[in-house]
Amino acid sequence: MLFSGVNMEFEKISSRSNEKIKLFQHLSQSASFRRETGLFALEGARICSDAAITGIEIKTAFFTVEALRKYPEYADAVIKKAEQCFEITHDLCGRISDTRGPQGIFCICVQRKNFDEQNLCENGTYIALDNMQDPSNLGAVLRTAEAFGLSGVLVGGGCDIYNPKALRAAMGSSLRISVLTTSNLPSLLIFASKKGMLTVASTPDSSAVCVKDMPKRDGIVCVIGNEGSGISQEVKDVCDMQITIPMRGRAESLNAAAAAAVLMWELTK
Amino acid sequence: MLFSGVNMEFEKISSRSNEKIKLFQHLSQSASFRRETGLFALEGARICSDAAITGIEIKTAFFTVEALRKYPEYADAVIKKAEQCFEITHDLCGRISDTRGPQGIFCICVQRKNFDEQNLCENGTYIALDNMQDPSNLGAVLRTAEAFGLSGVLVGGGCDIYNPKALRAAMGSSLRISVLTTSNLPSLLIFASKKGMLTVASTPDSSAVCVKDMPKRDGIVCVIGNEGSGISQEVKDVCDMQITIPMRGRAESLNAAAAAAVLMWELTK
Repeated sequence: MLFSGVNMEFEKISSRSNEKIKLFQHLSQSASFRRETGLFALEGARICSDAAITGIEIKTAFFTVEALRKYPEYADAVIKKAEQCFEITHDLCGRISDTRGPQGIFCICVQRKNFDEQNLCENGTYIALDNMQDPSNLGAVLRTAEAFGLSGVLVGGGCDIYNPKALRAAMGSSLRISVLTTSNLPSLLIFASKKGMLTVASTPDSSAVCVKDMPKRDGIVCVIGNEGSGISQEVKDVCDMQITIPMRGRAESLNAAAAAAVLMWELTK
Repeated sequence: MLFSGVNMEFEKISSRSNEKIKLFQHLSQSASFRRETGLFALEGARICSDAAITGIEIKTAFFTVEALRKYPEYADAVIKKAEQCFEITHDLCGRISDTRGPQGIFCICVQRKNFDEQNLCENGTYIALDNMQDPSNLGAVLRTAEAFGLSGVLVGGGCDIYNPKALRAAMGSSLRISVLTTSNLPSLLIFASKKGMLTVASTPDSSAVCVKDMPKRDGIVCVIGNEGSGISQEVKDVCDMQITIPMRGRAESLNAAAAAAVLMWELTK
């Protein structure tokens, strides 16, 4: 097998003021800049290789010499797909990395297209996130959604799936599972309802229907709320029913990613 | 109702080199120092109040003037239980806080006693953690364990429950649920087995028994593994059976806290 990366020579970047490096950093740091440009920054040997294999468009890739030696197969997959490749210094790698132990592979990628709401599958099983703020929770939900074979994830406000921490927590699932990001979740839920789907709001309210007693059926959208304030009133108002995971003890709620895992398990098992 | 904190005068600390402040910071930062001293550092209005109400021994409490005004009820609960109280400056609060938006209430507390292995309830339902490293995962597991009414959590190596991030993620559950920390999880599992309990290792290995087909019974210990490497061979070797959460797609495993949530749900529902 040929690991081209090891034997190839790339133009070397060592300055933080290089325009491509500045673009990478800006994409790491700013959700609004990601939205404007439709690009995102990705870091890590395995996940950059996953992106290449999954067919994500890679504009620019950066490698340290050490990474080319240490991760030849991952680097090779990226090199084959990237429009441009650069070598970066070890020092620069440390500066642009979002992690403590950077692996030395970075990409600037094009965001995937939202799936169109017209393509919401009326027999599908979806989870919807109403203003989830924590990127690690968001990433964990995407990872679990893929593992449990959900049809897709509807992201209504809050953290975006291209946040570096969310990307890391999702372990590549964000690059594969169908995602529809919307600024108007209530209207999307009304649309799903009109298609004959059941829309369900999850709540810590113990008077809601227990998740075990939820009707088992195809065509369902289950909403998870914000970490602090739960599901917004606007979203509750348009949902067909409310469900809850019963709790004991003095814990008043579950971590959003843990609650989502239990709900998705019950929806798909 | 009397909010004593607002009207009380506490000795004021403004220097980072104050011995009590140094102790707080050392406890925040060092797991080995926490182990040696049997103390831990706690931060946050609600959680410090929870600690006081739950009966955690509070050696020292620190408050900013703003916190005494803003959280009078929480502060009051802490003041009633703390051996010593100090006022700290806003600047010092920012320096010792582990969070971005500190609330200005901090405590040095005495760790709870491990429950004795002799008190492992043979009809109980326990989750055991084999070298879990991520404090947010550990905290989320404790929170879910309390919410689902587990009998207790066995912590075998890895992150300690008094890590500041773990305490925060547990939302107070670490101060209430029974915890047994052990450096020898295999021997504890053998002990549980001899008591007639079923010991179960969870694994992403799809050839293991599906969690849905796990025998429903009292007296069970279910082990969750390390985030990267799963359950150690030593622990697998002593477990009575292996179970798995079936997965689809290209996701190869679940986030440890999400997997733990599904397992605890199945164990207790």
